[in-house]
Amino acid sequence: MELLEARIRRDGKIRGGDVLKVDSFLNHQMDVELFNQIGQEFYRLFGGCGVNKILTIEASGIGIACITAQYFHCPVIFAKKNKTKNIAGDVYTSKVESFTHGKVYDIIVSREFLLPSDRVLLIDDFLANGSALQGLIQLVRSAGAGLVGAGICVEKAFQPGGGMIRGMGVRVESLARIASMSEEEGVTFC
Amino acid sequence: MELLEARIRRDGKIRGGDVLKVDSFLNHQMDVELFNQIGQEFYRLFGGCGVNKILTIEASGIGIACITAQYFHCPVIFAKKNKTKNIAGDVYTSKVESFTHGKVYDIIVSREFLLPSDRVLLIDDFLANGSALQGLIQLVRSAGAGLVGAGICVEKAFQPGGGMIRGMGVRVESLARIASMSEEEGVTFC
Repeated sequence: MELLEARIRRDGKIRGGDVLKVDSFLNHQMDVELFNQIGQEFYRLFGGCGVNKILTIEASGIGIACITAQYFHCPVIFAKKNKTKNIAGDVYTSKVESFTHGKVYDIIVSREFLLPSDRVLLIDDFLANGSALQGLIQLVRSAGAGLVGAGICVEKAFQPGGGMIRGMGVRVESLARIASMSEEEGVTFC
Repeated sequence: MELLEARIRRDGKIRGGDVLKVDSFLNHQMDVELFNQIGQEFYRLFGGCGVNKILTIEASGIGIACITAQYFHCPVIFAKKNKTKNIAGDVYTSKVESFTHGKVYDIIVSREFLLPSDRVLLIDDFLANGSALQGLIQLVRSAGAGLVGAGICVEKAFQPGGGMIRGMGVRVESLARIASMSEEEGVTFC
């Protein structure tokens, strides 16, 4: 997606070897007009697939998922990272390893919101090692729901997540795929 | 807001004395069509106030804030609950007490995204004890930005947060204000 690549080139900041900061428009400050373009593109890619539910993971996937859901006319569910008093015991759960935070945590979704009759589209802002996406796939499979695929904003194609998830037979559509990046050379897209 | 009150009456679930579960449409599964009605109502209330930025807090405020921002044609910032590697040191910070999780945590926002020239609307799903909203107000004041007010979906008016925040001189508009609730009697609105 040309618009997103151009925005990454303009406003993305590379820190160290493999940290791409896009927090001025994607995952801290959020450019909702851009999100609408992203949502339309996801709809172009997955609009014919019978999607009736979008599943994402807190926190930075939620905004993109909600804007995208307007095009699919379906609800969004976000997987939660911690079990709170407000969630009943009847949940699906899986594990996600966060490389950013350096820890493993559980994600959960209430069973009542993921049904075998659902056709689920996964949405997230980043795909790098694939752990979050793998956790979401596990939730969908635990529910026996249909998995349509995953719509990703930015894939670090030089990390193993995308290959691993596609190798599981899951359709992954990434709007910007980064082949390589460095503070000196900037970002190169696939 | 009649539509939201009707939805709470129909789909809200009261657990114990003071837990209102609205996770089938507001803060776990998210009804994006309803969010659009909510966003329009916030725009009716605050549309003439020069809002150029919406500030919310992860996670459940993000979806409502993003949908609402479409009407204001402005970006959203969400305050983060943990400091990660991806956020530089240059942040505003304040403390929030979570009664749901039973702990105190820091919230942060990057200084570069909150400016003295900003006119900020706060958006959140719930107002009960007011701790999250107070934390967001503190971030806005630290930045020297203008605070337009707070748009809240559900206020538990029988808890002290709304009175406390209004007592600080902040305009608070809650779309559904709960006067009382119990498992036997259901929900009564103000």
